[in-house]
Amino acid sequence: MRIGVIGLGLIGGSLLRALNAAGHEATGYDSDRTTRLAAVASGLRTVDTLDGWRPDVTVLAVPLPAVEAVLARLKDYDGLITDVVSVKQPMRERLAGARFVGGHPMAGKETSGFEHSDVDLFAHRVWALCLDEETRLADWLTLAGLFLELGARVVPTTAAEHDAAVAAISHVPHLLAAALVEAAAGPLPRALAASSFRDGTRVALTRPELVGAMAGGNAAAVREALDRTLAALEGARDALDADDPRAAVGEWFTPAWESRRNWPPAPGPTLTMAVDRERLLALGRAGGWVHSIEDDRHITVMRPAAKVP
Amino acid sequence: MRIGVIGLGLIGGSLLRALNAAGHEATGYDSDRTTRLAAVASGLRTVDTLDGWRPDVTVLAVPLPAVEAVLARLKDYDGLITDVVSVKQPMRERLAGARFVGGHPMAGKETSGFEHSDVDLFAHRVWALCLDEETRLADWLTLAGLFLELGARVVPTTAAEHDAAVAAISHVPHLLAAALVEAAAGPLPRALAASSFRDGTRVALTRPELVGAMAGGNAAAVREALDRTLAALEGARDALDADDPRAAVGEWFTPAWESRRNWPPAPGPTLTMAVDRERLLALGRAGGWVHSIEDDRHITVMRPAAKVP
Repeated sequence: MRIGVIGLGLIGGSLLRALNAAGHEATGYDSDRTTRLAAVASGLRTVDTLDGWRPDVTVLAVPLPAVEAVLARLKDYDGLITDVVSVKQPMRERLAGARFVGGHPMAGKETSGFEHSDVDLFAHRVWALCLDEETRLADWLTLAGLFLELGARVVPTTAAEHDAAVAAISHVPHLLAAALVEAAAGPLPRALAASSFRDGTRVALTRPELVGAMAGGNAAAVREALDRTLAALEGARDALDADDPRAAVGEWFTPAWESRRNWPPAPGPTLTMAVDRERLLALGRAGGWVHSIEDDRHITVMRPAAKVP
Repeated sequence: MRIGVIGLGLIGGSLLRALNAAGHEATGYDSDRTTRLAAVASGLRTVDTLDGWRPDVTVLAVPLPAVEAVLARLKDYDGLITDVVSVKQPMRERLAGARFVGGHPMAGKETSGFEHSDVDLFAHRVWALCLDEETRLADWLTLAGLFLELGARVVPTTAAEHDAAVAAISHVPHLLAAALVEAAAGPLPRALAASSFRDGTRVALTRPELVGAMAGGNAAAVREALDRTLAALEGARDALDADDPRAAVGEWFTPAWESRRNWPPAPGPTLTMAVDRERLLALGRAGGWVHSIEDDRHITVMRPAAKVP
């Protein structure tokens, strides 16, 4: 199986490294010549043009704003396409009719660029892989097998369920980080700021156009997740206004503390099951993931040991 | 100068280690016998009772909810008292009339307990030290000198200005972390959650009674900082509702991104100045800190190289 990776930034560069380390013949392309040269200098194989691009599998590893330009260059390509964009519904709509399976490795950083790429970026990380009604199950399994080889946990999900989930766990955190930076303006707060501020605002270092593409490209789901967050903060505000704010704030905080202490959920025992579209989606909804592929009809999966709140 | 540390958790234990490493004869006390034994096993000196407690300087290193019980035991003590509690105005009110200088090392972690204590915890960290109208300047300088020896950057501030600043940089982040946990409930979001969620919710691991004590004990300032945060998030909501949410969210995010890239502020050149109460407070308000004490009338200070937003 010949694999091609388009876009050699943090994710694409790491993927090209990891695929080669896993023994695949993978080829990379980046529109930036310096990036291609850096990849070659790292022992990776690249091509200088997308003319004649013909791998069996193509991974689009460019950010959402650059997808359109790449797809225009691939209009005659008929292989299997996957991507790593953090919003799946717009990609699904854009690639309707193509042989496409949307993916999203949960391995982002606030840094970007090939110089930060890392052969181990995907080990023990989740790789969300979309199984929508139009997705061919055989293609899904091909990609699942590939990402499992890189050490990832493959989570089956639909594009819509993915987008609703990442709105809460990734996109809203970017908005909160920015709001926190704004609320903590001034020389004295900036001088006193330490680890709570540093960690709470780390993702405010993400480039604005990427945040715009992901949160703005997932606006409806982000608005819902933001409204849930704001509703929770209204509870905090009420606690601050209580007769005994110390007790009330502590009480308000307790369920989140308990919940966070149980993340990440401990994995339960593995289970081998027949490959089935609905059962795969049920696995993802239960917080489980694919652990290994036994043959083209059986996979081994893992679920959280306890019910997740 | 004999120094005593009451409470040997993360902060107190680290402080006792650091004071001894700096060559001081420091003694520790903790109400928990196991903690005292652990400190002794680490080569630290402890006492088993507060009866006869007579060091020149006492550091109250217990959390706010435990302060009252300790002060009851110290009612005949007439040495210099400082503390490490994260809210300064309630401590100032409680210790009105005592020889007290409020302090707050910005070196918290989500962990607690002597087993996490670290001799280097205060190196290069900020130590806010309150210089209120009733504070004796000589006492302030004694403590500043002590904390400078541990490698800390001593920031002069008033209790009220401190509390307003930490509301934004520390207390609100705890509330946001908890709200984010609540908004990201469910097995699929929990399975997909990665570094944005991990860092954005890290401080939700802080014990609820400590969050209640600090945020609830600073309710008025926290409410103001929370309202600034909510106002910023209203801007995010408007951006999500815009005709082109990608562009609007990116644009909304940009000032915070620029601001966060400039944190922590780069230090400017050092400057030696005469010790003066108002100039010290102006230094803190400008984001500066005490770098070293030259003699009892001159100190060397450092300010950010550029104006802080």
